[in-house]
Amino acid sequence: MPTIDDDLPLVRHDEGGIATLTMNRPRQFNALSEEMLAALDHQLSRLAEDDAVRCVVIAATGKAFCAGHDLKQMRANPDEAYYRSLFAHCGEVMQRIVNLPVPVIARVQGIATAAGCQLVASCDLAVAVRSARFAVSGINVGLFCSTPAVALSRSVGRKRAQEMLFTGDFIDADQALDWGLINRVAEEDALDEVLEGLTASICAKSAVAVRTGKAMFQRQLQMPLQEAYAFAGDTMACNMMAEDVTEGIDAFIEKRPPNWRHR
Amino acid sequence: MPTIDDDLPLVRHDEGGIATLTMNRPRQFNALSEEMLAALDHQLSRLAEDDAVRCVVIAATGKAFCAGHDLKQMRANPDEAYYRSLFAHCGEVMQRIVNLPVPVIARVQGIATAAGCQLVASCDLAVAVRSARFAVSGINVGLFCSTPAVALSRSVGRKRAQEMLFTGDFIDADQALDWGLINRVAEEDALDEVLEGLTASICAKSAVAVRTGKAMFQRQLQMPLQEAYAFAGDTMACNMMAEDVTEGIDAFIEKRPPNWRHR
Amino acid sequence: MPTIDDDLPLVRHDEGGIATLTMNRPRQFNALSEEMLAALDHQLSRLAEDDAVRCVVIAATGKAFCAGHDLKQMRANPDEAYYRSLFAHCGEVMQRIVNLPVPVIARVQGIATAAGCQLVASCDLAVAVRSARFAVSGINVGLFCSTPAVALSRSVGRKRAQEMLFTGDFIDADQALDWGLINRVAEEDALDEVLEGLTASICAKSAVAVRTGKAMFQRQLQMPLQEAYAFAGDTMACNMMAEDVTEGIDAFIEKRPPNWRHR
Repeated sequence: MPTIDDDLPLVRHDEGGIATLTMNRPRQFNALSEEMLAALDHQLSRLAEDDAVRCVVIAATGKAFCAGHDLKQMRANPDEAYYRSLFAHCGEVMQRIVNLPVPVIARVQGIATAAGCQLVASCDLAVAVRSARFAVSGINVGLFCSTPAVALSRSVGRKRAQEMLFTGDFIDADQALDWGLINRVAEEDALDEVLEGLTASICAKSAVAVRTGKAMFQRQLQMPLQEAYAFAGDTMACNMMAEDVTEGIDAFIEKRPPNWRHR
Repeated sequence: MPTIDDDLPLVRHDEGGIATLTMNRPRQFNALSEEMLAALDHQLSRLAEDDAVRCVVIAATGKAFCAGHDLKQMRANPDEAYYRSLFAHCGEVMQRIVNLPVPVIARVQGIATAAGCQLVASCDLAVAVRSARFAVSGINVGLFCSTPAVALSRSVGRKRAQEMLFTGDFIDADQALDWGLINRVAEEDALDEVLEGLTASICAKSAVAVRTGKAMFQRQLQMPLQEAYAFAGDTMACNMMAEDVTEGIDAFIEKRPPNWRHR
Repeated sequence: MPTIDDDLPLVRHDEGGIATLTMNRPRQFNALSEEMLAALDHQLSRLAEDDAVRCVVIAATGKAFCAGHDLKQMRANPDEAYYRSLFAHCGEVMQRIVNLPVPVIARVQGIATAAGCQLVASCDLAVAVRSARFAVSGINVGLFCSTPAVALSRSVGRKRAQEMLFTGDFIDADQALDWGLINRVAEEDALDEVLEGLTASICAKSAVAVRTGKAMFQRQLQMPLQEAYAFAGDTMACNMMAEDVTEGIDAFIEKRPPNWRHR
């Protein structure tokens, strides 16, 4: 990852089909202020239209991944309409991640708390350094992490989600891995290497297949079994026709890398 | 916990905002007889209206937590209408736990079998001694644990729930922890200490935030993602206005315990 | 298991109430060709009507359990209508397993990939040798495993399912056990012994209770909590009247094996 000396709250860097969005307010622990949410919203909207992108990484500068909402900004706006709008906007940004046509991977160091933990739970995949820690700690300031609970309870088991939500306590990276909140734990200097293992794997795949899969996976989760199978079967038939699967099969049989029609 | 020499099937003891319901039929392994279910129903109904209570513990006297339905009582009433009424009542009691405005914690020693295991699965949190064991063993007497399956399959993975339901075999406390059926395993003499770790953590939180969270968590689980986010966002905005979150934030910044408006 | 020298793609062997369906195209890694799907469909339909069967095992001859769809056959039929029909048929076969009145156990050696992994995920229970490996690897040939994703995402956590689906990478048997995709890992020579532990346990149970349980478990999974409890309570009352549960209770009290009315 390049050095980020930009003044923007969120920096986008594209390389090899990977778009990395780096939250860049390290002194505020990359809090999801109005400005940060607007920047994420804007970049995710652009990415949804960008056919050159194969996968997205959400990263952060500084000691922390993301400490959740900006408490000082919230405190300065003691108004119910303001809060409704803020939490609605945050929910929209999280759903943009879920609905993005390509996989989104969280790259986590330091703490991921409250809506920062929700961000990790909302991504398709997540990697973290061993010293990373996760909490839904709003309860400590009198605010139950209700919107984070939506993502967290769909990512880990119920009693585990409730324990985190009612106590506000941290879990470490190994616990997060064991509970399925993240996919990989990396030693301190190996985070980008571990991340590249996932991004390189995704970028080597057919773009049509990856985009087809991301969209169908999220949609079928909310369907009863019979409807999910009908939808999945039709999706696969379309995938067969849209991509040169015969090329994939031939490459597999001939033990060579496939040459995809859609890069 | 005080000595319980009461003749009641269920004893309620309140201390420091924690209401402990202790099942007190140790010689019947605290079976969920009509009387025990009626007592649980009555106490849980009262607790639902009690604003002084911060969290509820379900405990048991004697060697076992709870051995499920009272088989002798069931055997003495070989009547389908009786059974329908019995299982409907049991389902209502379990849903009272889910719908109670405050978190409910199971404190488990010995065995938790059939509807006793369902009771553990239905609680928001659970702690157990290392020697505790869990089973949905109705299948051993010819009665598949259908109502326990409802709670169990929402608490642990499907293949694990099915294994327990079809074999009737016990799992130990470490296995229950690994599968997410319980939150903590305690050494034999440390169960109350471990329990107090959770109750003290919950009692230190804002009552408004805890009650808000318990209700929203259970409701949003049954919603599609978009609806869940809309509901959660509105809930958080209400939480902001109802509780003195600014006090929570100030206390956080000033590194002191918050002084909640609603204790 | 007897030696299988049959020319059929799928061999059924019944013994002691256990029907074993053995996929028997070892040189094709038991690919789910049209013929194999038709044979599975036929046998599962017959089993659904067979009251003598207590549980079903899905096994395979040769080095692999099942390598998913027959890629050569798919490549030879580059037609969207053909693919729609193929995936629809595969989805129906998987749902036949879910809807079968008795538990279905996968017996896995070697690889279980793509629709072969879906087969494992669709079974109620699964055992595997330690050297077995699992992947949803369609993405490697340009075809996202959409129908396998339906079964997989209902069997393991979301981030784990997505990791397998986007990378196509294998997980080993210990990982599959840890994630809840399978129930038991056996040493190389002990697979049948471990399998018999499960089948013997199920066959010792009341047939009415097992069949009642299998059907109710799958149906209640798709219901909201209140509806699930109403359904489960009625199911249990019917189970009480259909089976001689008093015999089960008496046997339990007298510490002897029960003598079930329905074997």
